[in-house]
Amino acid sequence: MVSQSEDWGSVPRQWTRKHLLGLEELTAEEINIFLDQAERFRAIITQGDRKINLLAGKTCVNLFFENSTRTRVSFGLAARRIGADVVDFAAATSSLNKGETIIDTAKNLEAMQIDAVIIRHGCPGTPHLLADNLHCSVLNAGDGPHEHPTQGLLDILTIRQRLGSLQGLTVALVGDIAHSRVARSNIWGLKKLGANVIVCGPSTLVSPHWEELGVEYSHHLDDILDRVDVLNLLRIQFERQVVRPFPSITEYAHLYGMNGARMKKTKNNVLILAPGPINRGVEVTPDVADGDHSAILDQVTNGVAVRMAALWLLLGRK
Amino acid sequence: MVSQSEDWGSVPRQWTRKHLLGLEELTAEEINIFLDQAERFRAIITQGDRKINLLAGKTCVNLFFENSTRTRVSFGLAARRIGADVVDFAAATSSLNKGETIIDTAKNLEAMQIDAVIIRHGCPGTPHLLADNLHCSVLNAGDGPHEHPTQGLLDILTIRQRLGSLQGLTVALVGDIAHSRVARSNIWGLKKLGANVIVCGPSTLVSPHWEELGVEYSHHLDDILDRVDVLNLLRIQFERQVVRPFPSITEYAHLYGMNGARMKKTKNNVLILAPGPINRGVEVTPDVADGDHSAILDQVTNGVAVRMAALWLLLGRK
Amino acid sequence: MVSQSEDWGSVPRQWTRKHLLGLEELTAEEINIFLDQAERFRAIITQGDRKINLLAGKTCVNLFFENSTRTRVSFGLAARRIGADVVDFAAATSSLNKGETIIDTAKNLEAMQIDAVIIRHGCPGTPHLLADNLHCSVLNAGDGPHEHPTQGLLDILTIRQRLGSLQGLTVALVGDIAHSRVARSNIWGLKKLGANVIVCGPSTLVSPHWEELGVEYSHHLDDILDRVDVLNLLRIQFERQVVRPFPSITEYAHLYGMNGARMKKTKNNVLILAPGPINRGVEVTPDVADGDHSAILDQVTNGVAVRMAALWLLLGRK
Repeated sequence: MVSQSEDWGSVPRQWTRKHLLGLEELTAEEINIFLDQAERFRAIITQGDRKINLLAGKTCVNLFFENSTRTRVSFGLAARRIGADVVDFAAATSSLNKGETIIDTAKNLEAMQIDAVIIRHGCPGTPHLLADNLHCSVLNAGDGPHEHPTQGLLDILTIRQRLGSLQGLTVALVGDIAHSRVARSNIWGLKKLGANVIVCGPSTLVSPHWEELGVEYSHHLDDILDRVDVLNLLRIQFERQVVRPFPSITEYAHLYGMNGARMKKTKNNVLILAPGPINRGVEVTPDVADGDHSAILDQVTNGVAVRMAALWLLLGRK
Repeated sequence: MVSQSEDWGSVPRQWTRKHLLGLEELTAEEINIFLDQAERFRAIITQGDRKINLLAGKTCVNLFFENSTRTRVSFGLAARRIGADVVDFAAATSSLNKGETIIDTAKNLEAMQIDAVIIRHGCPGTPHLLADNLHCSVLNAGDGPHEHPTQGLLDILTIRQRLGSLQGLTVALVGDIAHSRVARSNIWGLKKLGANVIVCGPSTLVSPHWEELGVEYSHHLDDILDRVDVLNLLRIQFERQVVRPFPSITEYAHLYGMNGARMKKTKNNVLILAPGPINRGVEVTPDVADGDHSAILDQVTNGVAVRMAALWLLLGRK
Repeated sequence: MVSQSEDWGSVPRQWTRKHLLGLEELTAEEINIFLDQAERFRAIITQGDRKINLLAGKTCVNLFFENSTRTRVSFGLAARRIGADVVDFAAATSSLNKGETIIDTAKNLEAMQIDAVIIRHGCPGTPHLLADNLHCSVLNAGDGPHEHPTQGLLDILTIRQRLGSLQGLTVALVGDIAHSRVARSNIWGLKKLGANVIVCGPSTLVSPHWEELGVEYSHHLDDILDRVDVLNLLRIQFERQVVRPFPSITEYAHLYGMNGARMKKTKNNVLILAPGPINRGVEVTPDVADGDHSAILDQVTNGVAVRMAALWLLLGRK
């Protein structure tokens, strides 16, 4: 079955943006609009109907310059479930090898009457560059270590579903903060909704400069366990690191990995998040990843819902 | 044109399985249900309409850990023609390179509200591992040298269409039996429907142990030609062999390749099958592959029909 | 919104071809039918509706043996926008590595009840080979340096839209003529519609033999600038060249690149085309590529329209 689209209503008037580049630029009101829409889409995809043809005739392109099957598939599913077509443009094998600029590649796709470019690129600011040069919508699916707004939104949506209002909650981001676009998007979004944020990791990955973003920092996970409501366990991104930032994986797991012993030091209703893919035994042990406090798979479901909301807000406006 | 789905009826009550893992576990009655449904779908795809929207809103993922364009495309077409969406997850470039377990990868896909995982993996038992850990349906698209149930079913469907009942027929599987999942699925399916099976090939690829599966074995193709109703010519799977099991391709073709001279020693209505891709001049010469007795391309058409039947039986139940 | 298909009418009776192999074989009347249909499809994709379900139930396969994201995506979008399904068959990772002939690969796809094979291959004549061996339609998406008919048609459509009738116009093809399938398709198409053609480039890439195709040749771009109506700036195809045909890129750009200075020597309404991807600063400078005379992005839009027309003419006949 496919849900009927007549009763969905229109895009809230307060939403006026054409692009989704990052959470830094969004207001608290805009983030809440996003979360509210995403929650409605989550109901569509989890309660049997799975699809709603709101964007029939619209076409999105996945323009991914970094390998990421998971996010690409999530965007692809989101597009199809909201009735849009989606095209994968495997940038690695594309004309860029023939000397074409990225703006020309994107303008060519736009000239094929594409409605949205979903871009992942290793270079921060690439989505903004495209937004300045295209007429169609641009969605940032990760620009280097800068932002990954749909991941930030899905993390925040998962917290709101489990713990209610974000106001006054304390959220710890643990691990490879330095290389993490997920950290930045989380920080900007969480702060705007009134949460306190602690970034926690070894000094090679967490510096005092993070205080400039209005967050607390810590090098000792055990020191903060008893006062956090949410632990968001970031993956160690070996592929972004030039110098190994700690002596061994074992030591990292010993100092910063969440495990059964550490869970006993947390609040009763602590929430465990991880953007995935998870390294079992490194940032999280299996008993924690698969335990009652974990919302890791909820995040994945919410990811599709958030991406449907993104496409709807950007492409559904009259 | 797209066929109307109202008149299709529902999944037969005798079919109660959620997964398709192999032919070893199916009963003769279940195999016959499969063949009957597949024949109805074959009529849909060959008689102009091509599509029937039975599974609108359902989504399948092709999770292939071995390169196989052909089977992947066949499943993809089957899904679309029965109205389902299909997503390709190129496992080679996926998060598995980032240390994720296969169960986590599959659970992540399931959390995106996927209805069926179609998996091909080099390790026998992988589909069964997923079936034990997922709530959604699992289809085995080939697990190492173990089983390839949709190939077994399409071979059997092709025989039934050409020769009628399987009861009492003698089917020879020729070639690389040792490394062949196609052989195992054929044996289990054919035996259940009352056929006799002979496995035939050099002693390095066909051992007396095969008798334990209730089949006859032979090292001399010429000895069995006059009493077989079907010859299923398996491809030499160089990619699975550690040691070359015979001195040369030329010698293999000389001893086990079907050609015009050998055709004269067969029954008048002998049927030639080959799961493909075929090596012309090795397991079969062009005159035989393209001759009247060959049903090689029928097998391909039946493959789409069998895969539509598989999706319908697994996902169409109320 | 999706356009209604009832009012589209049927394929013109004068069009009787099953395949699109090249412009060499088409008559002027057939080319004009193509351009007229493409113009109607262009209106569909640029005026909001984007889709028209003329070919529901039909399936095309992109069988690409050379990397080409751009043309593949253009065909894929065209297929979907006209209501057909499209399957990508990544030939590089396919069964061809397992010893299968290309005819067998294509026949296997056809046996899956595919309606059209869209083929790109490095070997001239491959589409013709398939057309001789398949029952379904074959579209040439580029066969080595031979033909690329949809590119030729989209170039001609773009000229007609900007300058009206082709009759009596002078079109210069500049650059790597020797290795260019775009040049050949342009020449055959343009000549049939009454245009004059000049091929221009260094003597290593443009030989007097081209006169046999009824065109003029020149080694000096500056000599012809004042009498051409259209400049089609071909890309230097390094990947097809065994020996570097000129001393340096800089020298090539100096002698054959279009730039602001050369634009001053052209007719007032000169039209600049380039099949892309463009090398900015080599065959064309940014001010020219992005200037008022450039129709480079129009060509891309027309490419989707022309490919919709191709699918409609080949698959829409009763």
